[in-house]
Amino acid sequence: MDQIRIIEVSPRDGLQNEKVPVPTSAKASLIVSLREAGLEEIEVSSFVSPKWVPQLGDVSELWPLLPDGGLYSALVPNARGYENARALGVSRISVFTAASSAFTLKNINMTVAESLDGFRPILKEHEGFKRAYVSTIFECPYAGRIEPAAVAKLAEELFEIGADEISLGDTIGVGTPSEVTQLHEAIRHLDHQKIVWHFHDTRGTAIANVAKALELGYRSFDASAGGLGGCPYAKGAGGNLATEDLVYFAHREGLTTGVDLLKLSQATLPIFEILGRPPTAKVQLAALAEWRSSQESAQQ
Amino acid sequence: MDQIRIIEVSPRDGLQNEKVPVPTSAKASLIVSLREAGLEEIEVSSFVSPKWVPQLGDVSELWPLLPDGGLYSALVPNARGYENARALGVSRISVFTAASSAFTLKNINMTVAESLDGFRPILKEHEGFKRAYVSTIFECPYAGRIEPAAVAKLAEELFEIGADEISLGDTIGVGTPSEVTQLHEAIRHLDHQKIVWHFHDTRGTAIANVAKALELGYRSFDASAGGLGGCPYAKGAGGNLATEDLVYFAHREGLTTGVDLLKLSQATLPIFEILGRPPTAKVQLAALAEWRSSQESAQQ
Repeated sequence: MDQIRIIEVSPRDGLQNEKVPVPTSAKASLIVSLREAGLEEIEVSSFVSPKWVPQLGDVSELWPLLPDGGLYSALVPNARGYENARALGVSRISVFTAASSAFTLKNINMTVAESLDGFRPILKEHEGFKRAYVSTIFECPYAGRIEPAAVAKLAEELFEIGADEISLGDTIGVGTPSEVTQLHEAIRHLDHQKIVWHFHDTRGTAIANVAKALELGYRSFDASAGGLGGCPYAKGAGGNLATEDLVYFAHREGLTTGVDLLKLSQATLPIFEILGRPPTAKVQLAALAEWRSSQESAQQ
Repeated sequence: MDQIRIIEVSPRDGLQNEKVPVPTSAKASLIVSLREAGLEEIEVSSFVSPKWVPQLGDVSELWPLLPDGGLYSALVPNARGYENARALGVSRISVFTAASSAFTLKNINMTVAESLDGFRPILKEHEGFKRAYVSTIFECPYAGRIEPAAVAKLAEELFEIGADEISLGDTIGVGTPSEVTQLHEAIRHLDHQKIVWHFHDTRGTAIANVAKALELGYRSFDASAGGLGGCPYAKGAGGNLATEDLVYFAHREGLTTGVDLLKLSQATLPIFEILGRPPTAKVQLAALAEWRSSQESAQQ
């Protein structure tokens, strides 16, 4: 049976968009639960300045609490963040850019080229696993549609300067399967196994895009348990693809994930209790409604 | 450019699941707004007993208020309902069954065969357009997975006894594209133009299923504006595919619908105000977030 690979991004990409402070111990428990649900690759946090993203300011306290055996990564936004990551022995790092300078300028206050200049020495120096995020692969909220050729050129450059894999993100959740196909045509000369798709379900198209990517031979997807997070720089763009929805879909399509869907659905519940809001994963909401309904029947 | 056909079901399939009473005038306004947004085919209500579905008990008052020119249908659950529909001059009628007797027994208190016995004379007598709903095409909440061959056999029988089109419903919203393909294989000898897919987005798979159906050559889809409704008999199964999400997807894929997405997104707002809850159409929620964000920016 075909296996897909899921990179769980809720502790970093999910929580960075949440304003209610989540205690370090709750983050550590979340990661333990995600691991117990079968997720191995987890992006844990970011070595960003606490001034920018207070929610992730505890990465140095969190890191030593991680359970053994996972493949944990952290975002390093700059040289200082990288030094801090190295001091903690972080072996898997991620760097961030986008297909649109209009987006990176609003987001990290530099052009795409400047962002590459910033992390080129980091990728050169680092000996562990290196992931590069490319945001706004289909459309930028400020510059409009993105040419697939531009994404392809950027991806080539990222591999050239040392990225081990590239996460292609539809940051504002606008894309549809024909756009996945068009981008695939532009990057088909690159190694599929080093390409990860990062979809948002903002407009209900994420699973359709996953289906198309699977059909085109890709097997790696980012997802966020409970649907935690979105993009803080593209306001109104909620909706990371929920890991539960991805896992449900994959299993129903006959693919294996290594994930226990019930355990996964429970993993984020303490976090949503802290945040004071329900999860957005549709599969979780459906399961909750079924459970409530069975409780009502039992009382009748 | 390829055109898809949308059958709008919110006034009937959507509202029948809402407990807060919606005044007849608000329903009439909704239908006017849906028409202005470009929707032509609308399932308006049901000639069901008001005891069963109080929300639709005003069909006889509502019908004369419909704006001219639309293709309006109504569900007729039995001979009495059909007589009432005829008295009002309803020319497009719908009848209801499912692929699973476990489902129809819980739902309308008869087996699938008995339901056909019930509406066979109606389909024979009626001279206007006749639609037949088949629920639980992939899975029944009580009997489990459904064999595609069983759905195909039922569809053949429905055509034989006079149905002009069949709406195939994934009532509990569990299906994925490979199931669409399997059912397609079983019904490929039937006329595609007479098959309508009715997906629910309960687990985030509706648009992926639409994409697969389009790829297989189908062009007709049921949808519910604002995501109104679900299935009252399969508790926990919320999530009719929202018309807004279908239209967004279709337009982004280069298909035409004849629908103005902005007008459509506004059409249901008075209804949700009455219901006291927000819409569930993802495209509407994204647009609302964008609008709020622009208001905040304008105030800064």
